[in-house]
Amino acid sequence: MSLNGADAPYRYEALAEIVSGLLDSGVLRAGMRAPSIRRIAADHSLSISTVLHAYRLLEDRGILEARPKSGFYVVAGGAKSRDTPKPSKPRRAPTDVTVSRGVLSLLDYAARPDIVPLGCAIPSADLLAAGGLDRFLARAARVKGRAYNIYTEPRGDPQLRAEICRRALRSGHALGVDGVAITNGCTEALSLALRAVTKRGDSVAIESPTYFGLLQVLEALELKAVELPTDAGTGLDIGALARLLAAKPVKACLLSSSFNNPLGCSMSDDGKRAVLALLQRHGVPLIEDDIYGDIYFGAERPKPFSALAPGADIIYCSSFSKTLAPGYRIGWIAPQRHMQRVLEAKFAMNICSAALPQAALAEFLASGGYDGHLRRLRRSFAENIDRISRAVDKSFPAETRVTRPAGGFVLWLEMPDGFDSRRLFDLAIARGICFAPGDVFSASKSHAHCLRLSCGHPWDARIEDSIHTLGALTAGLLGA
Amino acid sequence: MSLNGADAPYRYEALAEIVSGLLDSGVLRAGMRAPSIRRIAADHSLSISTVLHAYRLLEDRGILEARPKSGFYVVAGGAKSRDTPKPSKPRRAPTDVTVSRGVLSLLDYAARPDIVPLGCAIPSADLLAAGGLDRFLARAARVKGRAYNIYTEPRGDPQLRAEICRRALRSGHALGVDGVAITNGCTEALSLALRAVTKRGDSVAIESPTYFGLLQVLEALELKAVELPTDAGTGLDIGALARLLAAKPVKACLLSSSFNNPLGCSMSDDGKRAVLALLQRHGVPLIEDDIYGDIYFGAERPKPFSALAPGADIIYCSSFSKTLAPGYRIGWIAPQRHMQRVLEAKFAMNICSAALPQAALAEFLASGGYDGHLRRLRRSFAENIDRISRAVDKSFPAETRVTRPAGGFVLWLEMPDGFDSRRLFDLAIARGICFAPGDVFSASKSHAHCLRLSCGHPWDARIEDSIHTLGALTAGLLGA
Repeated sequence: MSLNGADAPYRYEALAEIVSGLLDSGVLRAGMRAPSIRRIAADHSLSISTVLHAYRLLEDRGILEARPKSGFYVVAGGAKSRDTPKPSKPRRAPTDVTVSRGVLSLLDYAARPDIVPLGCAIPSADLLAAGGLDRFLARAARVKGRAYNIYTEPRGDPQLRAEICRRALRSGHALGVDGVAITNGCTEALSLALRAVTKRGDSVAIESPTYFGLLQVLEALELKAVELPTDAGTGLDIGALARLLAAKPVKACLLSSSFNNPLGCSMSDDGKRAVLALLQRHGVPLIEDDIYGDIYFGAERPKPFSALAPGADIIYCSSFSKTLAPGYRIGWIAPQRHMQRVLEAKFAMNICSAALPQAALAEFLASGGYDGHLRRLRRSFAENIDRISRAVDKSFPAETRVTRPAGGFVLWLEMPDGFDSRRLFDLAIARGICFAPGDVFSASKSHAHCLRLSCGHPWDARIEDSIHTLGALTAGLLGA
Repeated sequence: MSLNGADAPYRYEALAEIVSGLLDSGVLRAGMRAPSIRRIAADHSLSISTVLHAYRLLEDRGILEARPKSGFYVVAGGAKSRDTPKPSKPRRAPTDVTVSRGVLSLLDYAARPDIVPLGCAIPSADLLAAGGLDRFLARAARVKGRAYNIYTEPRGDPQLRAEICRRALRSGHALGVDGVAITNGCTEALSLALRAVTKRGDSVAIESPTYFGLLQVLEALELKAVELPTDAGTGLDIGALARLLAAKPVKACLLSSSFNNPLGCSMSDDGKRAVLALLQRHGVPLIEDDIYGDIYFGAERPKPFSALAPGADIIYCSSFSKTLAPGYRIGWIAPQRHMQRVLEAKFAMNICSAALPQAALAEFLASGGYDGHLRRLRRSFAENIDRISRAVDKSFPAETRVTRPAGGFVLWLEMPDGFDSRRLFDLAIARGICFAPGDVFSASKSHAHCLRLSCGHPWDARIEDSIHTLGALTAGLLGA
């Protein structure tokens, strides 16, 4: 197609088609910056306003997005032909949690290199190693080994806590060094948070679907889950939360700050404020899990709840496991008024976290290499999601609904009601392919017809074949 | 004194005096090998049988001990002029545990280099660094960083578990690689063990006095402690355990395998067998804490309970925190029939332990350097105990009773009833000296008149002065 042919009624439309073609052919991919307006104008002998017109059209179609002072970028999520999953309608009654057995086997499969890793949400080792943290650990062990073979103070390494506070401030979350305690990953932070504000038998409000590890924590602490309807685009159903709080006593509400696993959705700042106002009115503490917050595909890191209401009763939890070092087991918690109980529980669990890995991570963060690593990682994840979305689009039956995550690195697929993703799982494992079946994402097993695909590993022929196989198996099960 | 003078009725007695003199002057110290019989005989122109006679006399007096095929060694414990503490008589009723606040501050003081470290039972960094583990971590980070930045399988690194099994076998404890799970230190192992066999509100039988960290675990899990009378020489009062089991339902019994912290006592193998038979009759699981088992001053490592009754319902817990690497936070649990529950709870706590430190420790153990390190460590601890015992003997009031530990590296001092070691603690801290006051070693606060001194740091003038100061402060409080 020519920009000047007689059959092109408007030049900007023709240009938009050309740019779309670059996307379809893979020249432009999710997360990449589109060619600058000046350059396109020069290359195609067009006016700046025509090119801008074309880019605005692509923005309207959800293909490009403008970022302040930075130009236009390809939106993540790739193929837009699929519907997104319907808002969840979980069981309303508090539910005892029993997901343990299903979950442990996923971790076993994740450790096996012969299995295609679409199961656990673990970034590929190569993506993470690019950060270079191991070099800092090697040096810390050589230089600081003697001094750091100690029990740290209960809150953990003060330098690491200072680095964490410095980073939190960028997303508007003001934290003091003594307001942070280091944990063995985000799971331990969530476990400590729940122990600080609940007792056995209490009910906790959560999103549905939600991360299965969180369900396992609830199970271990013998807490009941109250699952709230959650939309793959807009997040938690705030009205449902309001009705729940008015009707039932829940002792805590546990929500993703951003990019709920598995839906990849985020609430708006106003939505978050509305949630906080509701919780405050009912005196219910919020535990927020911000583990995916740094993996955003938009222009800015979304704000955690804690940044929107500094005085509110919020326990903030996060970790470096999704962006840098799952194997180091380093997370943190900012429990505000609950610090004393958190520290007592941490001591009783394992006294403190390992000292040298904390020292190494503090040095690494201070060295300034983390931001560049995060930028590369975000691009990789956006591209992986894009590729896998397109492959799903090609290979899966037409009824399949797919999320369009704005961050993180998982896709959530919804099949027609009655589909049994556990049967698909058994067939897939027999072919050396792991994914996460939907039943482990809900205490009430509301999502057995869904499944989660991890996009943590770079696209390759093995993953391509696996998506194709999964699509064919799904079609077989749906046809049967 | 000459060996041939007319005032020496028997040559062997004179020789015994000379050897005692070497001890008093510090030439020979606790844990050291005495000069060989042949060499003494040659040096002093005495017959072998005369020297042997002298050594047997010193053995009778509890100064030397014979070790099979190895000669005579100076017994640890030093000054023998003090009485040992009386058998404890704790409160009989189950007690809610509330020691947290007292315990956390001890750890804070342990992290301060300006405070004399007689508080927490932490070996000095120099003693530990001599093991050389940090070099293995530096290499593991360089060579294996990429491959080990993962969640390990839930049980932990298989090579490390294999090394642990190999070592366990030496003390008669047969363990399979899949029977062991790696934890973040012994505290986490104990916490997992208790979670596997108890529910909130249950009662657990423990020694009295006992390690305050264990009390903190009971507190965090909302378990009640039933404290059993324990003797500083022979350990647990088995009759009291029998009466308890006949009268009250306890859901578990948690005992030190050897060298109870703080008493340093061990039960005989027969005593352990009697305990196991009692527990089995009442269907009560034993949780055994063997963290001090490798720090023995006698000829052989004492056997853990698990080695004496392979089929019994025992959960074995230990770690490397007292002998090699407190800062690495690596312990292990062998929970037998309770493995599935332990793994589920471990996952819910923190998914798994950090991977690289495990890999480094596995390499270190395989390298064969650990045994030599343990031998040096045992000698150091025996010598520290010896020195501090002698200093206590000199500086503390005559009423002070002191333990003669057969292993580990703490001393337990008992003052007359009514003495308040918390008052002594406040005075000591003001002078920059930390120790562990007795009240944190008992749920029923039965030991407020006692205190524990850590002997984990090599003897120096600062420690000498501190013991002297503590003795004078104690005398002041007793006289007041």
